[in-house]
Amino acid sequence: MRNFTEANLTAEVVARMGKDCDPRLREVMSSLIRHMHAFVRETRLTPEEWLKGIQFLTETGKWCDDKRQEFILLSDTMGVSMLVDAIANPTAGNTTESTVLGPFFRENPPIIKNGGDISPGIAGKRVDVDCRVLSEDGKPIEGAQIDCWQASPEGGYDSQIGDGEAHNLRGRLKSDASGRFWFETVLPACYPIPDDGPVGDVLRKMGRHPWRPGHLHFWVQAPGHRQVITHLFVRGDKYLDSDVVFGVKESLIRDFGDQDRGKLTYDFRLKKAA
Amino acid sequence: MRNFTEANLTAEVVARMGKDCDPRLREVMSSLIRHMHAFVRETRLTPEEWLKGIQFLTETGKWCDDKRQEFILLSDTMGVSMLVDAIANPTAGNTTESTVLGPFFRENPPIIKNGGDISPGIAGKRVDVDCRVLSEDGKPIEGAQIDCWQASPEGGYDSQIGDGEAHNLRGRLKSDASGRFWFETVLPACYPIPDDGPVGDVLRKMGRHPWRPGHLHFWVQAPGHRQVITHLFVRGDKYLDSDVVFGVKESLIRDFGDQDRGKLTYDFRLKKAA
Repeated sequence: MRNFTEANLTAEVVARMGKDCDPRLREVMSSLIRHMHAFVRETRLTPEEWLKGIQFLTETGKWCDDKRQEFILLSDTMGVSMLVDAIANPTAGNTTESTVLGPFFRENPPIIKNGGDISPGIAGKRVDVDCRVLSEDGKPIEGAQIDCWQASPEGGYDSQIGDGEAHNLRGRLKSDASGRFWFETVLPACYPIPDDGPVGDVLRKMGRHPWRPGHLHFWVQAPGHRQVITHLFVRGDKYLDSDVVFGVKESLIRDFGDQDRGKLTYDFRLKKAA
Repeated sequence: MRNFTEANLTAEVVARMGKDCDPRLREVMSSLIRHMHAFVRETRLTPEEWLKGIQFLTETGKWCDDKRQEFILLSDTMGVSMLVDAIANPTAGNTTESTVLGPFFRENPPIIKNGGDISPGIAGKRVDVDCRVLSEDGKPIEGAQIDCWQASPEGGYDSQIGDGEAHNLRGRLKSDASGRFWFETVLPACYPIPDDGPVGDVLRKMGRHPWRPGHLHFWVQAPGHRQVITHLFVRGDKYLDSDVVFGVKESLIRDFGDQDRGKLTYDFRLKKAA
């Protein structure tokens, strides 16, 4: 086929997929092609604007390395990550709600014993975290694996401090026979997502701020149960209603304690695995 | 606002744009956000598939450098580039139809005098190109700038030959008082777009081939007229009906001559500038 026009091109691009294409890939690519084309038609995107888009994606790619994931930042700030999460993890009953993974999770975190400190050498208000992992019906789950990571009281993750090599402000714990795990840390501050790259530029142009309210990240996994990736947010933070990645849920906002030494408690309730 | 769900997230992301946002940027980003979200909802995109998408974009970024533009390849092969072109350059009357720029244009091409050779040292069937640049009403345009570039008889552009530094198989010419420009070159072969990167991978998975029919690229510019970026395609090429970038238009298919020494003629007709 030849002589493609605005009216007949989209159908042809979709129809070009061959018989051997995996059915799910065909479904995803058909939808992606149709929506990309609809975006271009709807906005009457000009060649100059198209080129700006190409340059934006190219620049976004240049900012990605093993400590910076600019495409995840883009997805997070445009609400795509939370939408994927909302579809994968619809809220059900009294189980713990999920939120975005974000770009700061790292493999091979320090292994922390219950009672340990996940923020050695970091100055700030100390907080005792004392939580439980429970099943849907409230039974303690022993041996659950809990990853926790967070920003410092100055709003930086370990990968943004010094040369970024040291693992700090993160740790992997296990729940005991009563489902309990506990550790000591510092109060996480609100922070701007890294905004010195193309995603920061586009946020500024869109008239948006780059801030996230203070929170601890948790990734809780236990055999026989669905994992949950979530945060616990600091009650009273000024960015709870304008989180740049749209991640706040009311049920995840917690008191971190008003005293000199803070205290955070929470029961994670996991759904049964399907 | 908090507690975003599949139902209320998209409107909030769009509404976050501030008062100072440029109206056109607001229009483009609103449409882009709505279509990205609609794609995710429609396909029920899973977190694993989302991550594959992030990895694909990241890998695509890694392949981009000053000789390779993988994002343009992606746009071209998904029909986005031709759609942008179709909207910007609707066919009108007898003026020359446009097609994609493609990723092989380079700045600062060799300046070629009329009668010169744009493919020195390249083996293959020689072709005499003898064209004119005319206005809509058929009047010769003197002093038009014509950029021409092409693949070799083996299907490679200069940036893909040797160390890729030498500029060859391309040149910049000027039309004479009768609107004419002429030069010597070699017959361009059909060729696969560079398919050793992520775009090649996804084409294979979609069951598509990576081939383009043989063609010469032209970019013709003249004062008082709209520029045209186009190709002239080799009649009889086996990929005319399945060009991987959807660029073929019947009016751009030309005889390149059956004799030992080929001959290509064409009159470029430019629209008046608006």
